[in-house]
Amino acid sequence: MQTLWDDRYALRTISMKGSAIRELLKVTQMPDVISFAGGMPAPEIFPVEEFKEACIRVLDEHGSEALQYGTTDGYLPLREMISRHTNQYGIKVTADNIMITNGSQQALDLLGKIFINPGDRVLVESPTYLGALQAWNTYNAQYVTVPSDDDGIQVDKLEMALRAGPKFMYVLPNFQNPTGVTLPLERRERLVELADRYGVPIIEDDPYGQLRFEGKHIPTVEYLDDQLHGNGTSYHGNVIYLSTFSKILAPGIRLAWVVATPEIIQKLVTAKQGADLHTSTFNQIVVYEVSRKGFLDEHIKRINSVYKERRDIMLEELEKNMPEGVKWTKPLGGLFLWVSLPEICNSKELLIKAVEKKVAFVPGESFYPNGGGLNTMRLNFSNAQPDMIRIGIRRLAETIKESIC
Amino acid sequence: MQTLWDDRYALRTISMKGSAIRELLKVTQMPDVISFAGGMPAPEIFPVEEFKEACIRVLDEHGSEALQYGTTDGYLPLREMISRHTNQYGIKVTADNIMITNGSQQALDLLGKIFINPGDRVLVESPTYLGALQAWNTYNAQYVTVPSDDDGIQVDKLEMALRAGPKFMYVLPNFQNPTGVTLPLERRERLVELADRYGVPIIEDDPYGQLRFEGKHIPTVEYLDDQLHGNGTSYHGNVIYLSTFSKILAPGIRLAWVVATPEIIQKLVTAKQGADLHTSTFNQIVVYEVSRKGFLDEHIKRINSVYKERRDIMLEELEKNMPEGVKWTKPLGGLFLWVSLPEICNSKELLIKAVEKKVAFVPGESFYPNGGGLNTMRLNFSNAQPDMIRIGIRRLAETIKESIC
Repeated sequence: MQTLWDDRYALRTISMKGSAIRELLKVTQMPDVISFAGGMPAPEIFPVEEFKEACIRVLDEHGSEALQYGTTDGYLPLREMISRHTNQYGIKVTADNIMITNGSQQALDLLGKIFINPGDRVLVESPTYLGALQAWNTYNAQYVTVPSDDDGIQVDKLEMALRAGPKFMYVLPNFQNPTGVTLPLERRERLVELADRYGVPIIEDDPYGQLRFEGKHIPTVEYLDDQLHGNGTSYHGNVIYLSTFSKILAPGIRLAWVVATPEIIQKLVTAKQGADLHTSTFNQIVVYEVSRKGFLDEHIKRINSVYKERRDIMLEELEKNMPEGVKWTKPLGGLFLWVSLPEICNSKELLIKAVEKKVAFVPGESFYPNGGGLNTMRLNFSNAQPDMIRIGIRRLAETIKESIC
Repeated sequence: MQTLWDDRYALRTISMKGSAIRELLKVTQMPDVISFAGGMPAPEIFPVEEFKEACIRVLDEHGSEALQYGTTDGYLPLREMISRHTNQYGIKVTADNIMITNGSQQALDLLGKIFINPGDRVLVESPTYLGALQAWNTYNAQYVTVPSDDDGIQVDKLEMALRAGPKFMYVLPNFQNPTGVTLPLERRERLVELADRYGVPIIEDDPYGQLRFEGKHIPTVEYLDDQLHGNGTSYHGNVIYLSTFSKILAPGIRLAWVVATPEIIQKLVTAKQGADLHTSTFNQIVVYEVSRKGFLDEHIKRINSVYKERRDIMLEELEKNMPEGVKWTKPLGGLFLWVSLPEICNSKELLIKAVEKKVAFVPGESFYPNGGGLNTMRLNFSNAQPDMIRIGIRRLAETIKESIC
């Protein structure tokens, strides 16, 4: 049916594509399909009882406040809690450096809104997080890509990309989405040094940093840059840092945060006022209540023990079942690993066959802003239970063996 | 402190102004100030117990679903409930016509994102809702204004504005923000007829429609347009309709909805995916649980009885205390009324004196996209309790009497 709206879409809308992730979420919901496609946490270990107790306490003690309009930057005690958490890593921030967002996706959108003019170049890893591309395509960003390997972004190829004059660089150093790989300390140091030499600021997206199953915490890019420039008393701010409660608590609650200078926070606040006024007061107070008093640390240990088991099973089954020529990453944490098929394979075509065998994944191509990765796929190991992982990987291996590739 | 971000803001950011509303919310929070400035519901009547029961039930029965990622368009039972509510007014929509947003502010932002190219003209009432201007300034909209009087937008002045080629028209026909006035049926019919003649689609923002204290429901612009064009079996869609749970339940929960054609909903879904992936699953299921089984209808009656009393007291005190030459609207519902001072007065200057006397309001100027209204102010009557309204209006009247204007 024709309406008066039909020929009135903005130019940017015409270039907005429906999301591959969304279409795949539909497959996820089909009965019998074992899905490694989403990025969903294990629902069995959601802290449902703790949420229930917190909801009751919040409504009993702060009912009027929790259901009323709140400030755009976020609930102050939550922002203070996040700043204390950040301080533990040697970064001297206060609540004025923190803004609460509806998931990190909103932070990516608001950063695009305040920094990207049409045609601006953004330097990204290739492959990189699809959600960032979806957010920034809206602002007509262009991408300069630097390939990654099993140790993340290849810093020896960074300099050429920096010379292309990107407005900023976007990196996910820990257990990257989609590849699961982690950038070693030396590469982080080199990245900070090169970004500094070329005067390019950085957005560091760290949704999975707390989900480390083994090995030692590696200092964030934020920390390393602050060491290089900081005055030792307050956060310098060349790096804007993003993290979230989605992976350490629950994604359905939609709470994440930005760490940046107070000047940038103020611009983000103005943008967020126009975008949705503020994030749910109720959810912020509930998450504050759930998180304080050390529960979060205990809960993260539990998540890591469950995810480590699932990663181990997935790696074991890949090893046992995959044919020659198939390779995969061995993540030290996070939710994903990355499979590379022989060059002649097309993972999008493979997905159709895989779904017939009742197993799903995300074809890697979507994570390459400038094309590529036709023979790759992302597998999630956090959501499916161990037995399902075993069956699912066997189905996937069979699909690959039977396909022409 | 200088960072690499300093000279990298997008052009649109430079034109984003900090919000007058935000600054005023700070005044609101000062002790002893009686504030008529915000747009906050009465917190005393928030259904705290109903929320508590719903939270417990949702977490007991749907804990894993409520805390997990959800779909971008929103929780299906909630969308179905909203479509049934819409059907009651004679508009034939299904859940496919509904998208859930984080307050209507997000709907305004996403509509700006998908429809406004830089420089596009938007036809608005003058004065109009400040939040719409904040959302659309981000997309570099221009405004064509049509003045309003005690019966809302002056439809006899609409034709000239329609000839300026606006991309769409934005109207708030019920108990408008900021003026509190309501557009009579004849003007609505004329507005729909003229918009049709000039081929201009309409966004109808109706956050307060359910908050009618007296008189009869007037058909929405959406309904009237549908009658003109509809085929009687499905919603035609020249009008995009917005409403919200913020005023009938609780704003801190951040839940609102859009009614539009499935085609437009699909574009909005793509935009929302990039903007924040989805609205809190938990909040959607909780609001569905709170609202079903008729509670909402009962609760709206209670809100209306409380707000009617407060409006009556405010009108009575204005009548008793305001000096000659001061006029105000007499709203039949909603949260606001609108005061016009003698032409020589400047309400921004008056606010400084008012705050000294511990009373606050919003100067009207901010609601005029192209300037004007220097002698006007918006008063909220929903938030302050009756005694405070009496004292506050007396303080305000004293301030006006003492000022030179």
